[in-house]
Parts: sequence; structure tokens; C-alpha cells
Amino acid sequence: MHFNAQLSQASHGHQSLLCVGLDPDPARFPAGMKGDSRRIFDFCARIVDATKDLVNAFKPQIAYFAAHRAEDQLEQLMAYMKRVAPGVPVILDAKRGDIGSTAEQYAREAFERYQADAVTLSPYMGFDSIEPYLKYEGKGLILLCRTSNPGGSDLQFETLANGDRLFEQVARLAAGRWNRDGRLGLVVGATFPAELARVRELAPTLPLLIPGVGAQGGDAAATVKAAWRPDGPIIVNSSRAVLYAGDGEDFAQKARQVAQATRDALNAARPA
Amino acid sequence: MHFNAQLSQASHGHQSLLCVGLDPDPARFPAGMKGDSRRIFDFCARIVDATKDLVNAFKPQIAYFAAHRAEDQLEQLMAYMKRVAPGVPVILDAKRGDIGSTAEQYAREAFERYQADAVTLSPYMGFDSIEPYLKYEGKGLILLCRTSNPGGSDLQFETLANGDRLFEQVARLAAGRWNRDGRLGLVVGATFPAELARVRELAPTLPLLIPGVGAQGGDAAATVKAAWRPDGPIIVNSSRAVLYAGDGEDFAQKARQVAQATRDALNAARPA
Repeated sequence: MHFNAQLSQASHGHQSLLCVGLDPDPARFPAGMKGDSRRIFDFCARIVDATKDLVNAFKPQIAYFAAHRAEDQLEQLMAYMKRVAPGVPVILDAKRGDIGSTAEQYAREAFERYQADAVTLSPYMGFDSIEPYLKYEGKGLILLCRTSNPGGSDLQFETLANGDRLFEQVARLAAGRWNRDGRLGLVVGATFPAELARVRELAPTLPLLIPGVGAQGGDAAATVKAAWRPDGPIIVNSSRAVLYAGDGEDFAQKARQVAQATRDALNAARPA
Repeated sequence: MHFNAQLSQASHGHQSLLCVGLDPDPARFPAGMKGDSRRIFDFCARIVDATKDLVNAFKPQIAYFAAHRAEDQLEQLMAYMKRVAPGVPVILDAKRGDIGSTAEQYAREAFERYQADAVTLSPYMGFDSIEPYLKYEGKGLILLCRTSNPGGSDLQFETLANGDRLFEQVARLAAGRWNRDGRLGLVVGATFPAELARVRELAPTLPLLIPGVGAQGGDAAATVKAAWRPDGPIIVNSSRAVLYAGDGEDFAQKARQVAQATRDALNAARPA
């Protein structure tokens, strides 16, 4: 199925704009698992079980697995999500960016090895660095546009000769010339609602993946007001605020409470 | 040891500006190994043995391992290179780019798990996406600046309000404000010698990693003329032209011949 259709079904079915980001850090695991990198799968599976009816996507971040030699646990987790939450699309957050022949290998990693439904990519190397991923039918490609970290402005906020900021140019390309068959989306941080609104203006119907709500401090209501449209889907990611809501035996229950509260806050901000 | 010192020692010791890129594609392996992803380590080790006295660096590309679930073989290869070629620095080509907390995980992957001497990074997310890698003493960080693929111009060639192209701004930042303790380098494609010369002008002493000689068509002599300076090191990468020089039992010998010819061509272009 097309990533956009999966996203739409999950958003409607679960009445949710929330994506839970799976950034497993063993140092922050609850008592009984703490510090144990062999428990990464177990930890994430508990979070998935506790939140799978509350989300429109899951987003595992590959670095958290790679740093612990836990690619096997990521494979296991990807298969587990497909089994217990078949209606929830999975975005592999990898931010890859390389030339054609190497991009083919990264695409194979994301879509064949890990069976992701979508992947995050860097736009810095241009269209032909994205093209190899388009060969995988139906898969979503979500390009970095405006990121919520302090240094995000270093290049993305540069003004071009035509008056655009660099991130606006990326939004234009992703909504226009690069979007050959409607499978591109954009990453736009929640911490700058005015820029989120600007990206939405330039890319009215593209899925926007919005990190920065929760631990990074973005405001849920401002985010939805700036970016949500009936035909412009949003995927509002929260990772740490959900994953580490509790550090006792009831961590999964605590995670569910935070996910539910965040989902409700996002829904409440949606215009009627 | 500091990456720049390692690079300088290998360049002088081996009288070489050549880096052999390790992009192992089992479909192109010689008879007897062809198509066998369990032989990735064996193939790369044979190439390393055959070229280790001819190079100033090795550059394994991580996607070629990840696509085949071969992270264990990459670990094995990294350890092997340290053992048989301790004087040759190893650049892990990963082009990572993410925010602080995630960048810490990628840095751990590159420098703790794989024990790389340097890593390639994307600059799109700005300085704080690079900073976590600087915590690892002596390691080199080589930022994408001007890439040799056709789409490289899509963003990198955008003109900014101050008249600079985006890649020029990246070069300025890497040579200036971002280069806090002299461990940054830049990736600049060989296919645009005029732009290579411009980057060298903006970043007179930074190591330049230059892919695109060989299979990608860049001219060795033009590259050296544009970029080499007595105090401005260059790392001219060739991957496919060396790795797949032969497809029979003598593939390693053929690889050595191509590496030697490329090294000699690069040296001949160096001003006396």
C-alpha cells in the first residue's frame, strides 16, 4: 500500500496525529532493564504494545540501534510492528544522503532488509540522491527541510538570491519538480510555528513529519494550527517524553498516558 | 594520533595522495566469490593487502555493508586494517547528519564500535549536528561540501544573498567558525576542478576528500592542480576503478596495478 494511504488510514482509524519515536537509550531504561543493550527490542516492544492504538506512525531511529550493535534487534522490532500493528506505517529515521550507486544500497537497507514503509533522507546531495529510493513502489521519502535544533539555522536559514530561505527552496522542490509520483514528505521542526506554516503554504498536501513536541519543547497546539490541513497530513513525533515517562515497572503504562495526553492535545488543537 | 598527522605520515611514507574506497558489491566480485555476501570481508581484505603501501587512506562505505547485514564483516575489516596497515588512516564514509542526542549515537557507532579515524558528515543540520563527533579526541570530521553527482548542484550551487554559492558557505564555515580545533575536512568532487580550486582558496589548509576520479570520470591531473598545496592535504578517492579492475583470480593484482597507476598519475601532476 502507498505510504500516504497507510498514514491516512492510521490517522483516521486511531484519530491521531501522533507518531511515537523509538530512540531506545539503555541508560534511560527502567529498573530491571537499565543499561542492558540486549533489552532494546524488549523495551521498544513494550512501548509499541502500549501505544499502537494511539498513533498514526512509529519512527525508529537507526543510530540508537547501530551504536549498540543491535541491528538484529531492529530487524526483530520491524517484524514485530508489522505483526502487532499492521495498520501503523513505520518510518525508518536514518537521514541518509549519498550518490546513486550508494543510495541504492541504503534503499536496499531501509526497504528490503528492514521493510520500512518510509525513510527520512537528507536533500543536500540533490534529486539523484533521492531517486533510487523511488524505485521501491509505494514507499514514502521524507526529506529534511527545517530542523528544530539550534544549528538548524546555520544553512537552512540562508537567504538565496531569489529571496527564499534554503529550507523554502527544499519545500518548493519537494512539492514540485522532485515529487514525481507524490511520495515525498518533509521534516519540519515544531519549534518554529511560523516556518511550519510557511512550509505548509509551499507544500499544501505533503505529509509533514514534525519532531520537537515534548522533550524538545515545541507546543502541540501551535504545531497543529500551523501545519494541519484536511488534505495536508501531519505526523507529530514525540520520542523521549513518551519513552521515558516512567522509570519503574509501570513505564509502559506511563508511556501510554503521555501518548494519550499528547494525542488528545493535538486533536483538541485541530480546527472543527 | 590526530587524523591530520596520520594522513600526513601516510601521504609522505607512501608518497601517495590516493585513497582506496571500499564499496564492496558482491554482484561485481570476481569468480569464486561472485554474489556471495559472506565474502565481503575476504574481498576487501585482499584489496587492502594489495594496496596498503600505495595509499594515504582507506574509505569503507557503510551502506555496502548494511545492505547485506554485514556489520560484523565491517567490524572485522576495520580491525584488520588497523593490524595490517596501522599507518593508514581509515575514513568511515557514512554521511551522517542528525541532532545532538542522535549524533552522539552515530559518533559512538563510528568511533567506538568501528574505531574509524575519521567520518564523513552532512552539514545540512548545522554546527550542533557536528559537535558531538568533536568529543572524540583526534578524530577527523569530513563534511560534504560540493559533490560530484549530477544533482549535486540542486542545492549546493544555489546562490546566497551575499553572492556565495551554498557550497562556498559550507567551505567558509568549515575553515572558520566551525573548525574549533582543526579537525574538519571537506568532501569536494573531482568533476568540477574550478570549484575544487575555489574550495581550496576558501579552505587553504583543510584536508579535501575528493571522490570522482576513475569510474566517475574526474581527471587526476586537473584534480591535483586545482586542490593540492604543500600545506593543504588531499585524499583522492578511487573505488570501483580499483576494486573491479579485474574479475578473475588475479583481481587483487589488477587492483594493485590500477592503484599504482592512479597514484603515479596523481604524483606526476603535483608541482615540483
